[in-house]
Amino acid sequence: MNVVLLCGGVGGAKLAAGLHDLLAPGELTVVGNVGDDLEVLGLHVSPDLDSVLYGLAGLNDPERGWGRAGESWQALESARGWGGEGWFMLGDLDLGLHLTRSQALRNGEPLSVVTARLALAAGLASRLLPATDDPVRTHLVTPQGTFAFQEWFVARAHEDEVDSLVYEGAVTSRPAPGVLDALAAAAAIVIAPSNPFVSIHPILAVPGIRAAIEARSVRSIGVSPLIGGRAVRGPLDRMMQRLVGGTSPAHVAACYKGLLDALVIDRADGPAAANEANVAMVATDTLMSDRDAARRLAQTTLEAAMEAQS
Amino acid sequence: MNVVLLCGGVGGAKLAAGLHDLLAPGELTVVGNVGDDLEVLGLHVSPDLDSVLYGLAGLNDPERGWGRAGESWQALESARGWGGEGWFMLGDLDLGLHLTRSQALRNGEPLSVVTARLALAAGLASRLLPATDDPVRTHLVTPQGTFAFQEWFVARAHEDEVDSLVYEGAVTSRPAPGVLDALAAAAAIVIAPSNPFVSIHPILAVPGIRAAIEARSVRSIGVSPLIGGRAVRGPLDRMMQRLVGGTSPAHVAACYKGLLDALVIDRADGPAAANEANVAMVATDTLMSDRDAARRLAQTTLEAAMEAQS
Repeated sequence: MNVVLLCGGVGGAKLAAGLHDLLAPGELTVVGNVGDDLEVLGLHVSPDLDSVLYGLAGLNDPERGWGRAGESWQALESARGWGGEGWFMLGDLDLGLHLTRSQALRNGEPLSVVTARLALAAGLASRLLPATDDPVRTHLVTPQGTFAFQEWFVARAHEDEVDSLVYEGAVTSRPAPGVLDALAAAAAIVIAPSNPFVSIHPILAVPGIRAAIEARSVRSIGVSPLIGGRAVRGPLDRMMQRLVGGTSPAHVAACYKGLLDALVIDRADGPAAANEANVAMVATDTLMSDRDAARRLAQTTLEAAMEAQS
Repeated sequence: MNVVLLCGGVGGAKLAAGLHDLLAPGELTVVGNVGDDLEVLGLHVSPDLDSVLYGLAGLNDPERGWGRAGESWQALESARGWGGEGWFMLGDLDLGLHLTRSQALRNGEPLSVVTARLALAAGLASRLLPATDDPVRTHLVTPQGTFAFQEWFVARAHEDEVDSLVYEGAVTSRPAPGVLDALAAAAAIVIAPSNPFVSIHPILAVPGIRAAIEARSVRSIGVSPLIGGRAVRGPLDRMMQRLVGGTSPAHVAACYKGLLDALVIDRADGPAAANEANVAMVATDTLMSDRDAARRLAQTTLEAAMEAQS
């Protein structure tokens, strides 16, 4: 059963790991967000792709919630001491990946090819594809000015309210090789419990991807990133309040108009309410506190995908 | 008393530290070799400049003999795991420097400007100048082929005999800003106990530097890198045997024809013999087993420089 997962960072990576464990080798294709990629200390960093890679390979740090387990910070401390860029947390283990990827990109390898090599090096049978090989960069328009994603999220601690978002470069970008084929061959499409505005919309902004999902002949299932109307972590609830006027399941569904057949929500947000988008609601426990919980949520999501189309 | 030291890596860095300690702040200018600079994991690495920087700042690892004390290797191990370049030993602390420098170079800053910033960040009053901002790269011609320095030294464990050396890019290179001025303002010139062929000759190959030393009006003192005709470490004795026919003080002096007034040699190589190059020999203990020993050797060297010109 081929499944395509549209996926952002940490939360999405957990569901990716759950699906990865349930599906047969090669059946899962993760299409990852590159809108918050950045250059730091001269290196290309793809935080969302890395979260998925680390999550699938079991290299992630579940306690910190991001980055690698067993991480150390000697290189960053050293760089700071030499007057280098020090605002973005790059661990030593993490740097090994960024160095390897950056060198390949500089040698002209497309991001999708490097990413495939990295997944192979991690021994992963699931496929990880960037939404695009072209530079698409999420910018946030706030009352304090317009900021690149990481500048807003990390350097400014996502304190500025967000009025709108710009996916720079999206208009002229093309889906990475394999993305549209994977969508065409999918038996189900899943949208991860990631931030719609900064994780999923930048994927959908790549011409061809939204249209492919709109034209689907299989079911597409979203998983809500909110529990009881609150974000598990990060600024999503505040963003939704301001951008779509609320944090109910119906508001989440509204973020994906025309793209969902059902939305998996947390019991805390149920009982499932009717909604303008006419999306079926499936209530379960959505907090992925460990990999078992992620598998259970993945199972519920796949079951929702397999239901007879309404 | 302004002193200019022409200097390679580890051995030279020790004498640099000794001179740094003896001279008043700002009096020492180290002109460092860039012939064994390389790109590894997409980063610009300047091993000799770094050895001097680490040596002067007391950050070097005296036990290992190169690199930084307290070093760890997480990033390199990680890079290897991801299929990245792993043949060149880059520690985590070391990487902090390479990342900072590489980013600056990529932003268009000349190597001499980055190097000055790094020395400042380390709180050093001594000046560290690359011989040139232009790419000069040492290649070794061997019966097995021609190799870039680090390929020969590290990857091939300097096992191939050396028939000759090529300093690629030297002909069109220019001395880095400050190098010729420092030589003109020097009260003494010192050539460090580095490998003449791979550390000092690439400096002298930058047009203008050799001529400035040949035309000196002050004394120029060399310090022999050999003790009892043997290299303290590395392949120098084998190279000298093949390239200049021996490892006596006279053979060392012959490597610097026209550039030395005196050569500081080890007692193991004395008593001082007459030599074709007509260089005075000063015998002392040249093994720099610690920083005190380096200061003593620096003192003897400065005394030799201050002797009435013969």
